[in-house]
Amino acid sequence: MAADFRLKEQLHTLTDRIVESYQEIGRINHLGHCPLPSSAIVVEIIDDLKELLYPGYRRRQTLHMGNVTYFVGDLIDSLHDKLTQQFARALRYEYDLKYGKDCDRRKLMDFEARGQQEAIKFLESIPSLRHLLVTDVEAAYDGDPAASGLDEIIFCYPGLEAVTVHRIAHQLYRQGIPLIPRIMSEWSHNQTGIDIHPGAQIGPSFFIDHGTGVVIGETCEIGTKVKIYQGVTLGALSFAKDSDGNLVRGTKRHPTIEDGVVIYANATILGGETVVGTNSVIGASVWLTKSVPPNTVVTIETPSLRLREAS
Amino acid sequence: MAADFRLKEQLHTLTDRIVESYQEIGRINHLGHCPLPSSAIVVEIIDDLKELLYPGYRRRQTLHMGNVTYFVGDLIDSLHDKLTQQFARALRYEYDLKYGKDCDRRKLMDFEARGQQEAIKFLESIPSLRHLLVTDVEAAYDGDPAASGLDEIIFCYPGLEAVTVHRIAHQLYRQGIPLIPRIMSEWSHNQTGIDIHPGAQIGPSFFIDHGTGVVIGETCEIGTKVKIYQGVTLGALSFAKDSDGNLVRGTKRHPTIEDGVVIYANATILGGETVVGTNSVIGASVWLTKSVPPNTVVTIETPSLRLREAS
Amino acid sequence: MAADFRLKEQLHTLTDRIVESYQEIGRINHLGHCPLPSSAIVVEIIDDLKELLYPGYRRRQTLHMGNVTYFVGDLIDSLHDKLTQQFARALRYEYDLKYGKDCDRRKLMDFEARGQQEAIKFLESIPSLRHLLVTDVEAAYDGDPAASGLDEIIFCYPGLEAVTVHRIAHQLYRQGIPLIPRIMSEWSHNQTGIDIHPGAQIGPSFFIDHGTGVVIGETCEIGTKVKIYQGVTLGALSFAKDSDGNLVRGTKRHPTIEDGVVIYANATILGGETVVGTNSVIGASVWLTKSVPPNTVVTIETPSLRLREAS
Repeated sequence: MAADFRLKEQLHTLTDRIVESYQEIGRINHLGHCPLPSSAIVVEIIDDLKELLYPGYRRRQTLHMGNVTYFVGDLIDSLHDKLTQQFARALRYEYDLKYGKDCDRRKLMDFEARGQQEAIKFLESIPSLRHLLVTDVEAAYDGDPAASGLDEIIFCYPGLEAVTVHRIAHQLYRQGIPLIPRIMSEWSHNQTGIDIHPGAQIGPSFFIDHGTGVVIGETCEIGTKVKIYQGVTLGALSFAKDSDGNLVRGTKRHPTIEDGVVIYANATILGGETVVGTNSVIGASVWLTKSVPPNTVVTIETPSLRLREAS
Repeated sequence: MAADFRLKEQLHTLTDRIVESYQEIGRINHLGHCPLPSSAIVVEIIDDLKELLYPGYRRRQTLHMGNVTYFVGDLIDSLHDKLTQQFARALRYEYDLKYGKDCDRRKLMDFEARGQQEAIKFLESIPSLRHLLVTDVEAAYDGDPAASGLDEIIFCYPGLEAVTVHRIAHQLYRQGIPLIPRIMSEWSHNQTGIDIHPGAQIGPSFFIDHGTGVVIGETCEIGTKVKIYQGVTLGALSFAKDSDGNLVRGTKRHPTIEDGVVIYANATILGGETVVGTNSVIGASVWLTKSVPPNTVVTIETPSLRLREAS
Repeated sequence: MAADFRLKEQLHTLTDRIVESYQEIGRINHLGHCPLPSSAIVVEIIDDLKELLYPGYRRRQTLHMGNVTYFVGDLIDSLHDKLTQQFARALRYEYDLKYGKDCDRRKLMDFEARGQQEAIKFLESIPSLRHLLVTDVEAAYDGDPAASGLDEIIFCYPGLEAVTVHRIAHQLYRQGIPLIPRIMSEWSHNQTGIDIHPGAQIGPSFFIDHGTGVVIGETCEIGTKVKIYQGVTLGALSFAKDSDGNLVRGTKRHPTIEDGVVIYANATILGGETVVGTNSVIGASVWLTKSVPPNTVVTIETPSLRLREAS
C-alpha cells in the first residue's frame, strides 16, 4: 500500500508529450539561447535601490556617516553589474522582437555596452530621485493624521512603496529600457495593490493613502501635491482601433490631473481629454469623463437610500 | 541595565498556560499524527507548474529544444512525488473529517495510491492546460493597448497569473482533491488581489485587466472571450439557510456570463439566476441582479454631480 | 564588445554624490548608531506567533500533545528574545523622537528592561488571543457557504489572516509599543489587501469575506458578530486642522459599528459620529455619512440603468 513504481516509470511518455506541446504551442515558451531579463534579479535590484534611496531603514541598520560610503560603494558596484546585464538582455530582447534574430546585423550590436551606458545614466539619477522622494514622504506626513512620523511612512506605507518603485520605473521608461519597468511596476502592484504604469508622469509631493485598487494608466499626467485615496481609477474611456481592428497603441488615453487636486476613495476618472483643474476636489465614488475647471468641488448627489426595518 | 534573567525563568509557566489553551480551545489546533497538506509545498508546486507551462521565462532561462527534455523530465519526476504526497494528505484529511479516525476502516484505505493516481491524472492534463492558457495570453494582448507583446504578459500580468493558477486549481477541484485547490487560489489572491474560487467554470480567451479587487464566486459560469476589469464582483445575492438556520452549501449562487461579454471596472453582478447574454457590455460601476439579453450595453445613468467652488 | 571597465572606474564619484545627498536631504536617512526595529524580524515574529496561535497547521506539521510543549517552549524562548530586542529599539526610537538624543537623561533609561516587561506582558496575552480568534474562525465558517471546514479557513482565508495580525497588533498598540504595530498591519495589508489600523477596536466573531480593498481606520469601534465584505471603507469624513494649519491627530474620526451588523461589498461609511445600530444591514455600494438606527436595512435606490443594443 504505497505509490506504485510501475506508474512512475510511465512519466517519461508524459515528459515527451509536454515537450511536444512546446513545439505545437510556440507562443508561450522562450526556448532559445538568449536569456530574457530575470524577474528575480529585477526584484533584487528594487530592494538594492531602496537601500540607496532610504539608507539605514532595512537591510543594514547600523549605518552612520563613517561607514555609509563603503556600504554605498559596494552596493553601487554590484548594482552596476546587475543593471548592465539585465538592461543588455532587455535591449537584445526588444531588438529580436523588432528585427527578428537576423544574425549578421545583430552581431554588430553591442547590447552590453549600451546596457552599461544606461546603467550608469540610471545610477546618476539617484540623487535627483531622492530629491523627489523626500517631497513624497513629506506629503504623506502632511496628509495623514494617523502617521506618527516620517520613519513610519518609510517603513510601512504602501503608497510610498508604490511611488518609490514608480519613480525608479519611470526613469527607466524614459531611458527606453524595455520590459524591466513593467516587471518593476507589477512587482509593486503585487506588493501594494497599487497599479501605476511606468509611463505615467507624476509631479512631486504625491501621496496615495491606503491605496489598494488604485489604477493609474500609462498616459496620465499628474501635477504637484496631488493626493489620491484607495480604489481610484485614472483610466481609459475606450480604445481606438485601426482599420484592421487592432488596438492603436501609444495615444493619450488617460486623464490629466493638475496641481493640488485631491481625489477621494473609489472615484473613477476616465479619458485622455479629461482634465481636472488646479486645486479641485473629486469626492468619493464620483464617476467622471469630462473636464472640471480649477478650484471646483465635485461630489455625487447624496444618494437616496432606502431604509426599512430588518425582518 | 539589561533584560532580567529571572523574568526569563518564568517563561515555562507561560508555555504551560499556552499548551493548556490547546486543550481548552481545540478547534483551531491540528495536534495529531496525520500531517495536513503543506502550504509551503503547495506554493512550490505552483511555481514548478509555471515552469512547465511557460518554459524559459523564470527559473531556468537558458532552455532550448536540446536541453528542455531533461529539464521537464526532472521537474515532472519531483512534481510527481510532491503531488502524490500532498494529495494523499488532503484525501486522508477529508476522510477523517467525514468518517472520523475510525482506524479499522481507515487502514484499508490506500491514500497514497489514490494520491498517485490523481497526481498522474493531473500531470497528464498539462498539455491541454497549455492549449487553454495560450488563448488567455493572446486575449490579454488583444485587449490591452499598453501591452508590448506576449512576453510582457507572461512576465508580469497579474490577470494571467490569476487565470493560470485558477486553471490549475480548477483541474484539481474537478478531480475532487480537497483543500489544495483553495490553498492555491488564496495564494494567487494574495499575489494578485484577484479572488477566483477554484469551482468557477471559465472558458478560453479570458482576460482580467489590472484585476485588484476582482471576486469570482464558486458557482460562476463564464463563456469564451470574456474580459473583466479591476474591482468586478461576480457574487452571491443572498444565502439560503436550511430549517436549522445553517447555510445551504453547494447550490448555484453566482452569475452566468456568456461568450464575448465585457465587464468594466467595479461593476457588481449578483445572483445564481442572473445571466449576462452573449456580447453584452456591462459599464463601470453598474450594479446588476437581473439577467441582461444578448448584445446589450448596460450603463449607469450619468450620475448627477454637484460642482461648487472650493472655499 | 562588452562593458567598458574605464566607465566602471568612475563609479566612485557616483558613490560620493549619493553620500553627499544623504547630508543634503537628511529626513529620509537613518544614519546613526541606534538601530530601528527590523521589518524582517517583525515579520518573523508574526509567523512565529501564528505557529503558537494555530499550532500544527504550517511550519511544524507533526505536533501532538506529547511533543507540543517542547515546540511551544522553544518558540516562546526565542520569541521572548526577539520581542525584547525589537520593543527596546522601538521604545528608544520613540524616546529620541520626543526628547532628542539628550544623552545624560537617556543613559538613565533602560529600554531593554522595559522591552522585556512588555514582551512578557504580550506573551501572557496569547491564551486570551486564542479565545478571541476561535470566535473569528467560527464566524467565518458560519458566514461563508463555500467554506468546507475550519481548517480551510485557518489555512487560507485572507480575512482570518488580517484579523489575526490585527489582534496581535492591537494588543501591542494598547501596550503603547511604537512603530511595530503599524509595521505588522501594513505587512498584513500587503498580504491580504485588507488595511486595518492597529488602533481599531474590534469585538469577537468578526468576519471579513474576500476582503481586498477593505479599509478600517484607527478610531473605529466595531461590536460583536460583525461581517464585512470586500471593498468596504470605514473611514474619516474630513480632517480637523489646528490654527497653524496642521492636522489634528488623535480625535475620533472613524465610525462605530454595533453588534450583529453586516456590511456588503464596496459600502463606504465615514465619520467619527456615524453609528450603525445593532443588527442593521448596509447594502453593497451604499455611501453613508449619518447614523442608522438599530435593525435597519439600508440599500441604494435600485440604480437606473440604460440598456441599448450594442452597435
